[in-house]
Amino acid sequence: MSSLRNRDIISIGDLSKDEIQAVLDQAANFEQRLARGESHLVAQLLQDHILATVFYEPSTRTRLSFESAMNRLGGRVISVAEAKTSSSAAKGETIYDSGRMLESYADVIVQRHPATGSARALADAASVPVINAGDGTGEHPTQALLDLYTIQREGAGNGLRALDGLHVVMVGDLKNGRTVHSLSKALTNWKVNFTFVAPPQLAMPDEVVAYLRQRGATVQQATELAPALSSADIAYITRIQQERFSSVEEYMKYKGVYVITAAAVAQAKPGIAIMHPLPRVDEIDTDVDKLPNAAYFRQARNGVFVRMALLTMVLGGD
Amino acid sequence: MSSLRNRDIISIGDLSKDEIQAVLDQAANFEQRLARGESHLVAQLLQDHILATVFYEPSTRTRLSFESAMNRLGGRVISVAEAKTSSSAAKGETIYDSGRMLESYADVIVQRHPATGSARALADAASVPVINAGDGTGEHPTQALLDLYTIQREGAGNGLRALDGLHVVMVGDLKNGRTVHSLSKALTNWKVNFTFVAPPQLAMPDEVVAYLRQRGATVQQATELAPALSSADIAYITRIQQERFSSVEEYMKYKGVYVITAAAVAQAKPGIAIMHPLPRVDEIDTDVDKLPNAAYFRQARNGVFVRMALLTMVLGGD
Amino acid sequence: MSSLRNRDIISIGDLSKDEIQAVLDQAANFEQRLARGESHLVAQLLQDHILATVFYEPSTRTRLSFESAMNRLGGRVISVAEAKTSSSAAKGETIYDSGRMLESYADVIVQRHPATGSARALADAASVPVINAGDGTGEHPTQALLDLYTIQREGAGNGLRALDGLHVVMVGDLKNGRTVHSLSKALTNWKVNFTFVAPPQLAMPDEVVAYLRQRGATVQQATELAPALSSADIAYITRIQQERFSSVEEYMKYKGVYVITAAAVAQAKPGIAIMHPLPRVDEIDTDVDKLPNAAYFRQARNGVFVRMALLTMVLGGD
Repeated sequence: MSSLRNRDIISIGDLSKDEIQAVLDQAANFEQRLARGESHLVAQLLQDHILATVFYEPSTRTRLSFESAMNRLGGRVISVAEAKTSSSAAKGETIYDSGRMLESYADVIVQRHPATGSARALADAASVPVINAGDGTGEHPTQALLDLYTIQREGAGNGLRALDGLHVVMVGDLKNGRTVHSLSKALTNWKVNFTFVAPPQLAMPDEVVAYLRQRGATVQQATELAPALSSADIAYITRIQQERFSSVEEYMKYKGVYVITAAAVAQAKPGIAIMHPLPRVDEIDTDVDKLPNAAYFRQARNGVFVRMALLTMVLGGD
Repeated sequence: MSSLRNRDIISIGDLSKDEIQAVLDQAANFEQRLARGESHLVAQLLQDHILATVFYEPSTRTRLSFESAMNRLGGRVISVAEAKTSSSAAKGETIYDSGRMLESYADVIVQRHPATGSARALADAASVPVINAGDGTGEHPTQALLDLYTIQREGAGNGLRALDGLHVVMVGDLKNGRTVHSLSKALTNWKVNFTFVAPPQLAMPDEVVAYLRQRGATVQQATELAPALSSADIAYITRIQQERFSSVEEYMKYKGVYVITAAAVAQAKPGIAIMHPLPRVDEIDTDVDKLPNAAYFRQARNGVFVRMALLTMVLGGD
Repeated sequence: MSSLRNRDIISIGDLSKDEIQAVLDQAANFEQRLARGESHLVAQLLQDHILATVFYEPSTRTRLSFESAMNRLGGRVISVAEAKTSSSAAKGETIYDSGRMLESYADVIVQRHPATGSARALADAASVPVINAGDGTGEHPTQALLDLYTIQREGAGNGLRALDGLHVVMVGDLKNGRTVHSLSKALTNWKVNFTFVAPPQLAMPDEVVAYLRQRGATVQQATELAPALSSADIAYITRIQQERFSSVEEYMKYKGVYVITAAAVAQAKPGIAIMHPLPRVDEIDTDVDKLPNAAYFRQARNGVFVRMALLTMVLGGD
């Protein structure tokens, strides 16, 4: 297996199954070490290293998660929380020049940018590793990694579980969500069965379904939620946004259909884990929050462990 | 006395007299240690701890004061300086979900939010301690603590002084200022005499005055400043904002009346300490700045010691 | 030579030749130590020190460069990236009051402000060292220092080179650029020959030329670029902004004239170093980027070493 040292992390598709599993194992290792009270030791791993977080779109959750991860490892953070209005970008600086600047200030760069391909452009410029924190409708690989970690982690006691044979249900706007595209593709590294539950106009794109089947996955498509939940190990919920519909009536017809409630969880397969990339609005009723099945806040927490793993591995601190 | 470990600090009214005094004593201890050159030792107290500062309203002074305090203690800071425009809040995330997110990223959370009650809502959600840095017209407990520290610290040599018997004059907009409400209530833990100097339409609310008297305080109310200053140990000045008046004439009538000048200080009780929560505009003439009575910049500095004490105590680092 | 300990760095003109050289030597020392892998040792120099960066105008490059420098030295950073909209400034706080606040929160302050003289005003208020990161059309001394460092560093193997006898060509908008004014004046500490290449309406101001000549420098002025480059050791390029011209035609006439291309470099003196304060737009063609003569990204990197030197020296950590 190739090392991730000095690697750019642009797309989850760039990582082999072994590399993905190595990140998840390292994440599990960090979760265990922090639980054992070894924060002092962990905080020595990236001392004298600087992370630059550069966000052309605000994303509080992703930015804070990376910054928390770097700080837990003893590293330092410099940040441009609103890069769009920063002087250099406003003056017309290119991504290339930005990369040549940032490589002098930091040892690793995390960038969120609205343009697809901008992460690759930055990585081509900068001599230090670049981690893509979302580039338009493109990729958001650390989201896919933390989702995979959560799927392996839920229902697995203290460690990680095998993914082969799991039934993963994805729900909501499957057409526009880069999250569900990346995650489903990454899951074909294992033998996973999918059910995609969406309104017809928001169904998983044909090319994604074709890719998954070609990689050996079993794919079911549905518009009704309850039957899918009855055998699901994982229900991955995404938000349906009103602007995706041509009329308010059309939107209202689907809006309430896929809401996860405590009653729905009670009818679902015992031990089902409810996931959501967050922030949620009302796709998951707050009465689910207290159930052991509510995995979405653990999922957010897992993002810190996964990003600790990735930062350590690309910087060679592991 | 109960420990403050893992406690949320939402309202100064939640703290007993003993707990308040413990915070002030700890603050004095930090001030002395830093003055003795023990910054290196102090910087080991909160290593491996992360503070999240989340400000839905900008407040440079309060945010920097907390962040300075955390850094002096060796801790780390992640920050959302403009949370209102952050992606999660803009997408409609609730305070509850925000709290469940932040508890995964940080060991203690400081929040400023325009809505009264929002600090309590965050504390109810998050498993880590929450410190309220101002919630609308509600509370701002660390301001009250640093004010109390300053009152004990002024005129006390190297330590703190007893508050019993002090004459505290509060001046300006006493109707709308959460600062003077919280501080005056907190001062009833000691035997303090108050004089409230304000235009009639900006007088201290009746319910506050009633509360203070019921707790045993002596309360005078006045519209003239000079007589009150002649016997005051402390003059706590607040700003009169034009928007509080129905006409410009009414505003102009009072605006200049309560300005503290060097001449006014010369007529006041010797040793009087002039306090102000800052920023000031013109309520205190700059010719006061060089007088030993000008306590307001020391007051701002005291905020760092008080917040160091509080962060250490809620995180169990003391 | 006087020490820089506790000194405010407001204008490059405040520093003697010996003081400037001491900063550049210290910067070279840091560059060498980091190249030798001594980052762990360097990171102990300013532990327990806090830098406040306060930017009333956004300047990503300058802010990140200072923050990277402070973190490389083991220090901590608190930051106001958008001070203009901060609560204190919005409420009308003066620079004086801001300085009295910041001196309580930090051990050194870096300020960028649109008003000429604002850095001096802050330094007069604050008891801790203030470093001017640009005040309107006034000064930006660390830019001049990193430019001087780059001129000494280019073509000098591992160390610094003597400046006497060098031919420095400055190109573009020489009328409005505070960078070229400060740098050319600072270069008169050595025996440097200047050629200033600019459209007549953007020529170097007469008073600057007079100052340089009075200090013993040889000054040529020109409107054509190629002849000057044929004997230049340094070409310092600046941007020509459209808003400086009375008509679009006038602007278009000059815009393309002073573009540095790989072909132009091939015709220039061998070993010429191309410098630019960045961000560039199109004054330097991207085909220059891969040439060894392209010094502008190294120049940005040098900013970190120079700021490390300066922070260490004013804080007495050297």
